[in-house]
Amino acid sequence: MPISRREFLTTAGKSAIAAYPAMMALGLLKPAPAHAFELTGNGNNKHIIILGAGLSGMTAAYELGKLGYRCTILEARNRAGGRCWSIRKGATLQETGQPLQTAKFDEGLYFNAGPSRIPHHHALTLHYCKELGVPIQVYNNVNEAAYYFSEGKGPLSNKKIRIREIHNDVRGYITEMLAKAIDQHQVDAGLTKEDAQKIIEYLRAEGGLDIDKLYKASNRRGYIEDAGAGDKAGKIADPYKLADIIQSGLMDPDFYNVAEYTYELQMTMFQAIGGNDMIAKALEKKVAPLIRFGCEVSAIQNQPEGVKITYKDKFGEKQLEGDLCICTLPLPVLSNIQHNFSSDVSRAIDYIPYMITGKMGLQFKRRFWEEDEHIYGGITHTNNELTQIFYPSNDYLGKKGILIGYYNFHETADKVSALSLQQRQQLALEKGSLIHPQYAKEFETGFSISWHKTPYSMGGWALYNAETRQTLYKAMLQPDKQVYFAGEHMTYLNAWMAGAFESARSVVTAVHARVTDQRLKYPKA
Amino acid sequence: MPISRREFLTTAGKSAIAAYPAMMALGLLKPAPAHAFELTGNGNNKHIIILGAGLSGMTAAYELGKLGYRCTILEARNRAGGRCWSIRKGATLQETGQPLQTAKFDEGLYFNAGPSRIPHHHALTLHYCKELGVPIQVYNNVNEAAYYFSEGKGPLSNKKIRIREIHNDVRGYITEMLAKAIDQHQVDAGLTKEDAQKIIEYLRAEGGLDIDKLYKASNRRGYIEDAGAGDKAGKIADPYKLADIIQSGLMDPDFYNVAEYTYELQMTMFQAIGGNDMIAKALEKKVAPLIRFGCEVSAIQNQPEGVKITYKDKFGEKQLEGDLCICTLPLPVLSNIQHNFSSDVSRAIDYIPYMITGKMGLQFKRRFWEEDEHIYGGITHTNNELTQIFYPSNDYLGKKGILIGYYNFHETADKVSALSLQQRQQLALEKGSLIHPQYAKEFETGFSISWHKTPYSMGGWALYNAETRQTLYKAMLQPDKQVYFAGEHMTYLNAWMAGAFESARSVVTAVHARVTDQRLKYPKA
Repeated sequence: MPISRREFLTTAGKSAIAAYPAMMALGLLKPAPAHAFELTGNGNNKHIIILGAGLSGMTAAYELGKLGYRCTILEARNRAGGRCWSIRKGATLQETGQPLQTAKFDEGLYFNAGPSRIPHHHALTLHYCKELGVPIQVYNNVNEAAYYFSEGKGPLSNKKIRIREIHNDVRGYITEMLAKAIDQHQVDAGLTKEDAQKIIEYLRAEGGLDIDKLYKASNRRGYIEDAGAGDKAGKIADPYKLADIIQSGLMDPDFYNVAEYTYELQMTMFQAIGGNDMIAKALEKKVAPLIRFGCEVSAIQNQPEGVKITYKDKFGEKQLEGDLCICTLPLPVLSNIQHNFSSDVSRAIDYIPYMITGKMGLQFKRRFWEEDEHIYGGITHTNNELTQIFYPSNDYLGKKGILIGYYNFHETADKVSALSLQQRQQLALEKGSLIHPQYAKEFETGFSISWHKTPYSMGGWALYNAETRQTLYKAMLQPDKQVYFAGEHMTYLNAWMAGAFESARSVVTAVHARVTDQRLKYPKA
Repeated sequence: MPISRREFLTTAGKSAIAAYPAMMALGLLKPAPAHAFELTGNGNNKHIIILGAGLSGMTAAYELGKLGYRCTILEARNRAGGRCWSIRKGATLQETGQPLQTAKFDEGLYFNAGPSRIPHHHALTLHYCKELGVPIQVYNNVNEAAYYFSEGKGPLSNKKIRIREIHNDVRGYITEMLAKAIDQHQVDAGLTKEDAQKIIEYLRAEGGLDIDKLYKASNRRGYIEDAGAGDKAGKIADPYKLADIIQSGLMDPDFYNVAEYTYELQMTMFQAIGGNDMIAKALEKKVAPLIRFGCEVSAIQNQPEGVKITYKDKFGEKQLEGDLCICTLPLPVLSNIQHNFSSDVSRAIDYIPYMITGKMGLQFKRRFWEEDEHIYGGITHTNNELTQIFYPSNDYLGKKGILIGYYNFHETADKVSALSLQQRQQLALEKGSLIHPQYAKEFETGFSISWHKTPYSMGGWALYNAETRQTLYKAMLQPDKQVYFAGEHMTYLNAWMAGAFESARSVVTAVHARVTDQRLKYPKA
């Protein structure tokens, strides 16, 4: 079954879940538990060492602080937030094997190098936005006015086609085929005559079919001359031919309706106003005194009672002892750190793969995609190295703007990441110009990131399948003696900020259960 | 062909449009002409009397003012904006046959009694937002988390069902049927074997089918236990049975995917921040000195040269003479005014029907739809008198909020409008409580409007079909001597603010062409 990359990621590992009884299906979806996190008992000043000042580490420190723990967060970078990072003027990045990059965007402009989107059902992400006072706005993930662009393939190649045209043409042809088949009793779906008739009526409405159940196009796919005042009734084009659509690859996985259909990408979606790292910044304010920046961990040692962390800061190697440790380091990073974990945990750390992914932000003098092309937010999909172009869901009708010029994955991202920074930009501009010729005149400055080449991240997010969920993942669910593992990689919400939050709460609950129990056993602790 | 009401309205009258050659289809959609309105020549202080200070009247005055005309706007109400009206604390309405209603909403809360939505391709509406400095935000028209609610019909009756569940189940069953039919060569669509295989692969992805091309449900339809951290893999319910969906009316016109599919309702959509009448207020600032409020027009008389308007204000009957008149009064209002128009125009005024429609805003203490049910914006659809519930697309995560408790049309709206104000509210609360039991505890105050019972509007918007476009509509496209007709009813953009703007520009162009030409002929004018 061909499914998209993202869909693969989000559905992988769930095939083993038994279908629930039909009775459950009759119930309403329960609201996710988005509310204050209230645990009883006191941490009694136990010292918890947290590795990594990303969302999960800071959230753990924030919640543990409320419970009476003493936390120290060791962070290798000189900034907090980890992958929750928005690129603004002055942001710097030195990828492995690349020169230092400094963002030269105008003040007030940014792009989200990490997570861009908050699904409406990620209740914990929205909960922290509310608790921390981070205002949100709609992330406009679905935009029928954006394009499909199939490079070098078929009769519709090298042509930017509004998504609504393909969506409505394909919907039209498919419903036409099925309506005809049902009508001519070619399909026996075990339906009554009345139900079959209802379905035909539905298909007509769904596909915009005419009275003869034929697809003829409608204004759903847009006008070639807009409707307006007076005698401007609007003019509609003919639909594309189905065979042309197929042969141009526009029904291939590159163009599946993933952006609308997956649970994670269904509208409504949100983003933090001003950049998603506003969430990280708001958390950082709560735990700022606990963070030690520029501390690169080199060893994690479980002790008979407690844990010892070895790290380097600018003054040299240091050691820090604590009662327990919460390690939120991404596994490719952790894999290079000395530890005395069990062989199962060690294997998991070394073998859980991470997503190879890259993004490039491109600043333009003018929001030509809005002014010239009426594209406000949303995503253009391509079959070339760009994979996607994201249009900003903020500052609509503004002067300048930053597009995400590419957002790619796997082999494509690997290939692009191997280019020099200058070559990456050239690629983004050349391929982007095929879709938006305005690039040439309006481009100002760009900034690219390859997450797997970014020190202290070394990947986009953890990738699991059904097998590794049962083996490698399970090995890390329990603490390795005094060390707990947290982060998006310790959840079924990989790649999402919600994973960091859910994981932090989960590990705080486990730590607190252990400590409050222990306190009874070892009152001196 | 069963189509929805709204779709009917927007597609009616277009069937006569000849299909354009395939070559046109190969071209890109041209961007609509959203830009400054630059006409040459000067109006030379000609006096234009504009009837109605709605969007079209004020826009005409604004643009004519730039061209050197002297405009007077006569407005019957004591406010500008016409149907572009947002209900805030202190707003009053006295419908025909009803007592005076005063809105008691909290400061800062509002609902749009008139237009709520701006399609991304309504370039002129967005142009004026930009020119007048009205900030916009996404109107979140499509929300898969909102509900379908079928009252008293079939096995799924009286149950709120997330839209995503029905969308994905129906999509699954339909693609399953078609994939099977194509696979078994029951459908001959004239496709090559390779293309047929591509379609099957596409259908699998589109419908979320398994390897055997069967629909089994997926997390696209949501979880009954959310995925999260640790061992929380998430639990999925069984799909609804297709027969149950059909028999519960969930494939009936009440629930067609109109909100996503029509050109006008495709994402991206916008609203003015703080209420759509911010657009009217911004226009009003530009033309405030020209507006005479409380002036109810009783007669429009073409003179041999010029026009004479009779109106009443609080001091009594008055007359005003001008060179030309732009009449933007809704036709049901104009129908009650004396005039000496041609019999064709007179017939059009009397016979073009208007939409019967009503809305009710309901203020709640708490945004339970967000807090308890994770519904952020979007629309719940019902088969009962409510027809739709609109969730606010603003102030997400805020404290209080106003729902549009019903938005109904035609017979339903007529029936609801006949109720007392108290009964309308009771209906909105009782029916709404079936979906949101929180209503009982959280409701604070409501405000309802029936547009066809609202003086000086007397209807929602003009309704045309293919026949009346060719007869009644055409009769009004040319001026009746010195009187030009403008407003959404003089466009193919009925019900939309864009209709008012497009119409205003169209009529300003016509007036200016006449005057600048006339000026040469009659230099004394």
